[in-house]
Amino acid sequence: MHIDILTLFPEMIESVFHSSILKKAQEKDKFSYNLVNFRDYTENKHNKVDDYPYGGGAGMVLTPQPVFDAVESVKRDKATKPRIILMCPQGEKYNQQKAEELAVEDHLVFICGHYEGYDERIREHLITDEISIGDYVLTGGELGAMVVVDSVVRLLPDVLGNEESAPQDSFSTGLLEHPHYTRPADFRGLKVPDVLLSGDHAKINDWRKRESLKRTYERRKELLDHHTLSEAEQKMLKEIKDNF
Amino acid sequence: MHIDILTLFPEMIESVFHSSILKKAQEKDKFSYNLVNFRDYTENKHNKVDDYPYGGGAGMVLTPQPVFDAVESVKRDKATKPRIILMCPQGEKYNQQKAEELAVEDHLVFICGHYEGYDERIREHLITDEISIGDYVLTGGELGAMVVVDSVVRLLPDVLGNEESAPQDSFSTGLLEHPHYTRPADFRGLKVPDVLLSGDHAKINDWRKRESLKRTYERRKELLDHHTLSEAEQKMLKEIKDNF
Repeated sequence: MHIDILTLFPEMIESVFHSSILKKAQEKDKFSYNLVNFRDYTENKHNKVDDYPYGGGAGMVLTPQPVFDAVESVKRDKATKPRIILMCPQGEKYNQQKAEELAVEDHLVFICGHYEGYDERIREHLITDEISIGDYVLTGGELGAMVVVDSVVRLLPDVLGNEESAPQDSFSTGLLEHPHYTRPADFRGLKVPDVLLSGDHAKINDWRKRESLKRTYERRKELLDHHTLSEAEQKMLKEIKDNF
Repeated sequence: MHIDILTLFPEMIESVFHSSILKKAQEKDKFSYNLVNFRDYTENKHNKVDDYPYGGGAGMVLTPQPVFDAVESVKRDKATKPRIILMCPQGEKYNQQKAEELAVEDHLVFICGHYEGYDERIREHLITDEISIGDYVLTGGELGAMVVVDSVVRLLPDVLGNEESAPQDSFSTGLLEHPHYTRPADFRGLKVPDVLLSGDHAKINDWRKRESLKRTYERRKELLDHHTLSEAEQKMLKEIKDNF
């Protein structure tokens, strides 16, 4: 996979690519990346990439020319047909399913605005996807793009080792994770539940399943609607509801 | 405001604090930050901060000791009563309302796990908040913490200038933004809507309101449920629905 990120703040995100999973994935040749400052593509003689909005109003708007030209340049460099992704609050809400969809692509191009709005012609005639990582306002698209990149790259084959993959996969099982405990068994008087020290694996599995259902019911009921429960799980869930 | 971030990968996020709004806000003395590598607090002789889960299973779990000690250390350094925020997929879904709630605090402490799960005693006895930035799996809490920091700091008084504040505030008005256009009026044959060039501000406002309603209806119907529409807006929305 190749990833291009169009941004006015490449220095903001460079170091994320040098850390952790993204670094390892590059060392294993699982993906490559390129940060493109689209200011380098502007034909404006003052090097500007934004301008006042037609019709008036506050805020600046990214002009189409540097963004179109930067995208065309990164497309020309590769034989692939990229997904061209605009990071913006109006976009499709990002989720794990979308991460899995993007993880099978050869080439992703992210466009990150910063402060500015986007000229609508970018949205209508250049991109393939609009993504929002959540219902909150960020200063720019850079952090959102990094969130998408991290969640996608960790899904590429052979990127994660066993140790790295297991505990956070809440959204793959469809339920929230059960609680985890590690040593010491007694930390300042706070104790690990007896069942986890019992060595009885059937009991442990039962406890974990129950805690996972309980946490999901308490915090994110709507996830249960999309999850097919076994008969045993349905019984557990009924008991949880009765005791709630 | 002071922000402490407990992480095993401080180098991953350092540069985000040196860019854009976060940099400006520090220059204006609106907030200060400190990156704490909680590995420095471990009493484990091999410098480890995680261990195998009780009860078996894949993945590692962060031990309570270094996290408790690191949090106590940053609390001791300040007279404030901090919000202690765990970044995790099981947490409360982050949104703009939560950003506004955090923006009035004096001191935020973020705990970022990486690969590992958290020992449940951290969750039960140390923290005040659990936050998830969305329903997708990330390698660690660092990017999520940066998302929260960015969204909170830009709400602090006098951080944003006028030019920076306007266009992205979709979630403040409750509706998605109308399209924006800037020069040129004709870009490779793609034209700006005539109304925006008309100079008729009543018409322009009407067009923008209609486009904002239309985009919200098309993409995020549920936002309309939480939004009080004026009589004129209700009429517009009816026309939009009739033509859909």
